[in-house]
Amino acid sequence: MRVAVVGAGASGLAALKCCLDEGLAATCFERSQDIGGLWRYTESIEEGRPSLYASVVSNTSKEMSAFSDFPYPEDFPVFLPHARLLEYLRRYAERFALRQHIQLGTTVVSVRKRPDFATSGQWDVVTEAGGTRTSHVFDAVMVCNGNFWDPSLPLHAFPGIEKFQGQYFHSRQYKHPDVFRGKRVLVVGMGNSGVDIAVEASRVATKVTLSTSRGAWVISRVFDHGYPWDMVFNTRFMSLLRNSLPGPLARGLISHRVNRWFKHENYGLPPLAGEVREPVLNDDLPSYIITGRITIKPGVKEFKKNSVVFYNYPEEEPVDIVVFCTGYNATFPFLEEADVKVENKHASLYKYVFPTHLQRPTLAVLGLIKTLGAIMPVAEMQAPFLCTTTHIWFGLFFDEVLKIDWIVYLDEIASFIGAKPSVLALLFSDPKLAFTIFFGPCTSYQFRLQGPGRWDGARQAIRTQWDRMLKPTRTRATSVSSSPWPSLLTVFGFLLLMAAVVFAFQ
Amino acid sequence: MRVAVVGAGASGLAALKCCLDEGLAATCFERSQDIGGLWRYTESIEEGRPSLYASVVSNTSKEMSAFSDFPYPEDFPVFLPHARLLEYLRRYAERFALRQHIQLGTTVVSVRKRPDFATSGQWDVVTEAGGTRTSHVFDAVMVCNGNFWDPSLPLHAFPGIEKFQGQYFHSRQYKHPDVFRGKRVLVVGMGNSGVDIAVEASRVATKVTLSTSRGAWVISRVFDHGYPWDMVFNTRFMSLLRNSLPGPLARGLISHRVNRWFKHENYGLPPLAGEVREPVLNDDLPSYIITGRITIKPGVKEFKKNSVVFYNYPEEEPVDIVVFCTGYNATFPFLEEADVKVENKHASLYKYVFPTHLQRPTLAVLGLIKTLGAIMPVAEMQAPFLCTTTHIWFGLFFDEVLKIDWIVYLDEIASFIGAKPSVLALLFSDPKLAFTIFFGPCTSYQFRLQGPGRWDGARQAIRTQWDRMLKPTRTRATSVSSSPWPSLLTVFGFLLLMAAVVFAFQ
Repeated sequence: MRVAVVGAGASGLAALKCCLDEGLAATCFERSQDIGGLWRYTESIEEGRPSLYASVVSNTSKEMSAFSDFPYPEDFPVFLPHARLLEYLRRYAERFALRQHIQLGTTVVSVRKRPDFATSGQWDVVTEAGGTRTSHVFDAVMVCNGNFWDPSLPLHAFPGIEKFQGQYFHSRQYKHPDVFRGKRVLVVGMGNSGVDIAVEASRVATKVTLSTSRGAWVISRVFDHGYPWDMVFNTRFMSLLRNSLPGPLARGLISHRVNRWFKHENYGLPPLAGEVREPVLNDDLPSYIITGRITIKPGVKEFKKNSVVFYNYPEEEPVDIVVFCTGYNATFPFLEEADVKVENKHASLYKYVFPTHLQRPTLAVLGLIKTLGAIMPVAEMQAPFLCTTTHIWFGLFFDEVLKIDWIVYLDEIASFIGAKPSVLALLFSDPKLAFTIFFGPCTSYQFRLQGPGRWDGARQAIRTQWDRMLKPTRTRATSVSSSPWPSLLTVFGFLLLMAAVVFAFQ
Repeated sequence: MRVAVVGAGASGLAALKCCLDEGLAATCFERSQDIGGLWRYTESIEEGRPSLYASVVSNTSKEMSAFSDFPYPEDFPVFLPHARLLEYLRRYAERFALRQHIQLGTTVVSVRKRPDFATSGQWDVVTEAGGTRTSHVFDAVMVCNGNFWDPSLPLHAFPGIEKFQGQYFHSRQYKHPDVFRGKRVLVVGMGNSGVDIAVEASRVATKVTLSTSRGAWVISRVFDHGYPWDMVFNTRFMSLLRNSLPGPLARGLISHRVNRWFKHENYGLPPLAGEVREPVLNDDLPSYIITGRITIKPGVKEFKKNSVVFYNYPEEEPVDIVVFCTGYNATFPFLEEADVKVENKHASLYKYVFPTHLQRPTLAVLGLIKTLGAIMPVAEMQAPFLCTTTHIWFGLFFDEVLKIDWIVYLDEIASFIGAKPSVLALLFSDPKLAFTIFFGPCTSYQFRLQGPGRWDGARQAIRTQWDRMLKPTRTRATSVSSSPWPSLLTVFGFLLLMAAVVFAFQ
C-alpha cells in the first residue's frame, strides 16, 4: 500500500512515521527546502508557507507537546521558543530515519480521485519539483499542509479602510517590533498572535490599542503554583469534570478559574455572553494593561483617514499602523473543492479527519482540528486511524471544528485503534500508574502503553514526566524544603484572624 | 523659621509643600535643571543624578503612590511609566505653586552646624549655581537628595573580574536593551533592576543568566484577581495580621502566599533560609524562566577571561556582558560624615529621619527608608514630623532601614502629628468609612482625615479610590455581570466531584 503525505511539518512527520511503522510505503512531499513546517522560522515571508514572528514560544509545554515515543531532551525549556521546537522535530526525523522518505522542494499540485476510485480508493497525485511535473498513483493520501499560511483578511468587514492613509497589514507579515517604533498602533483581533503582537509593539510604540469585539479569556503558561497550564488543565480528571458537569456549572467553574489570575471584567476582556471560543494563551497581557502600555477597546466600527472609530465608544482614536490579527483560512489548493470544504470554521470531516462525501476513506486531513492542546499527539493519533484500514465507515457526519475537548478527542480516536489506556484495568495491575494517568497530565505516552504502537519506554516516560519538566528551571539549588506550613496555616490562620480583628479596633 | 530643602524629587516636593503649609519660609535647592528627581528620565547619564532605564514602571499603584491631598487623574494608568509619574509630580508642583520656591541648577555644597548650634540649631548652607557660591543660614534642613544615584559596585567581591575580557557595567549605565543584542549576558543581583534588565535583555540577547546568591520572593503587580498588589497587601487588616501573628506563622503565611503564583523552589528563586529581604516586584520573571529565556544561577564565585563560575554549580558559563545590579549607596556629600552615616544598610536615624547624634533635631533625612510601599506618603509624613517642632526628642536610636512595615511606620509617624486615623472612633461616626479604612488599601488620604493637614476632600478621595483604579482599564464595556456562580460552585462543585471520580473508572 502506497501512501502520500503532503507536508513535512509536525503533523506530516507524525503521519510519515506512522505509515513507516505500519510497514506502508510512504512518501512525504514538502514544498519548501526543509522540514519543520510552521516551526521553521525564516526572516523572509515565503508564499504558501507559514510565517512566524521572531518571538514565538509554544503555547503547550514540552511534556504535553511530545510525540508519544520521543520525549523532549530534559534540558529543553518547559515552553519552547520556535528554534527549540524545530530542533526537536529535526531530532525526531533523525531518530526515526524519516528524511529519506521526504522529497523536499516538491509541491503537490493536484490530488484527484482515479476513475476507479469507488472500488480502488486510489488517487492521482501530481507533484512539481524544479519546474518538472510528475504523476503518481497512491492508495491513500494524508493531507498535512497546515492551516497557518493562507491569511484571512476580510477587509469588507472594516468600513472605510480604503480611506485610511496609515499603514496596515495582516499579522502574517509581522516579524519584529521595530516597525512600530514611535507609532500609534492598532491591533485588531485578540487571538494568540494579536495579543503577542500588541505586547511586543507596546515596548517601542507610542501607544498600542487592542481592539476585540468578542473578547476572550486569557490564561497564562505559568498556571497554578507555577506549573505549566496544560499539565494542570489537561488531566483526565479535569477533562471529566469539564465534560460531566452540567453546562452552566462547567462554564461557571471555568469563568471562576480564569478570573482568579485577574478579573477579566476589570481589564475590559471578558468574552461576550454566550460566545464560545478557545482561551488565549498569554503571560503578559494583564500586566501590560495595568501599566497602561496596552489599551483594550471594543470592535472596530469604521476607519477614517488617520483614525479609527470603535463600537460603543465615544472617542475617535488616531492611528498610524493597523495590524489585522484576523487569523487564517484552512486551504487545500491541490484538492477538489467537493472533496474537502472548510467554511466558517466548520469542516465536513468525519472525526475531523475523513471527508464525508468520499466513497472510500483513503484521504485524511490531519491536524486541522483546533483543540486546546498540542497538535503532535493529535496528528499521531489521526494517522494510524487511517493506517489501520480496519476502521468502520460511518457515512455523513458534520462536525464543528472548535468545540471539542483535547483529551476527549484523543481518547475517541485512540479507542478506534485500541490505544486508549484503561484506567480501570491499570488500577488493579499498577495502581500508582493508574493514578498518575487519571490525575496527572495526559501526556501522549499514555497512548503507547497498549495497542498497535505499544512502546516499552512509555511507562518510564510517564513516571519521569515531571522530572523533565522541572530539570531546566531548577538551576539554583536551594535548601528550602517544602514546608508543612500551608495546610497548618489555613486552619490556624483563620483562628487567629478573628482575634486579630478584635485587636484592630483598639 | 527658614528651612532648606535639598532636592526637588518626590520627597523634596512633599517636604517643600509641607513647609509652606506650615507657614515656614522654605527654599528648595535642586542641582539639575528641572524637578522630578528619580522620575525625570534622561537619555544621558548625569553625574550626581539618578539614571533610570527607559522602560521603568512604578512598583506601587497610583492610588497608593498619591500625595495625600492630590489623587492622580482618573485616566492615568494603574502603575505608572516614568513619564506619567513625572507628569504627576509636575502637576503637583503646579497645583500648589511650588516652583517659585525652587532654585534649579543649584547644588548644595555643604551643610554645617553653626557655632551656636547647641542653642540655635541653625545650619550654614553653601550652595553653588553657575560657578558662584552663596552662603545661607537656615533654621532647619530637610535632606531629600535621594538614594538612587551613587552606584554601589563592590568589585572586590568578584574575584577575577580584572581578568574578565568582556564588557561590564553597573545597572545605572543601562538605558535600552540594544546593547545586549546577540550577546551572552550575565545579570548579577536580583533586585528590581536586576530582574527588569534580565527580562529586557532576554528579548534580544543570545542567552541571559541571572545570578543571585540570596534569592528573593517575586511578586507581581497583577495580584489576587488582578488587583494591584499593594492595594491588597497594604491594608491595615493585612498589616495587622503580618505583625500580630507569631513570627514563623507570619513567615509561613507569606511564603504560602507568594508561592501561589509560582512555586519559587521550582524556579530556583527562593531566598536563602533565614534571609529577610524585601520581595522583588516583577510581572514577567516566571514566564521568562519557564520559556528558557532566563536561566537562574547561584552567586558568582569567580570570573575568568570569557566566562563565569558559580557557587555550587559544575559548569562554567561563557559570558560577553555583565551587568552588576548591585544597588546604590545612600550618600550625603554635603554633610559631615559624623552627622549622617549609612553603613551596611543601617542608618543612625531616629525613626529613619533624625540623625541621632545631633543636639538639636533640625536636620531631617527624608525618603531614606525602604519599606514595601510608595515613598510619597512616607516623605509627606516625615516632613511635618520636623515641621511640627513640638515633637519630643528621644535621644539615641539605631534602626535598621529595611525591616519595617510600611503602614506601621506611617502610623507611627502620623501619631506624632495627630494624623493617624482612629478606626474605632470612625466605627461609630462613619462605620462604612471605618471598614474601608481597615479592610481596604491604606491610601495616604487616610492621613488627611484629621490632624494638622486635615483635607476636606479626603473622605471623598477614599470613597472613590477604587473608581480611579478601575477607570483606565475598563475601556471595553461588557455586559458580563458578576455572576453568583463562584460561591455556589464551591459547594456544588465539590459534591459533583465525587460523582465524577466514580464515573472516571468506568
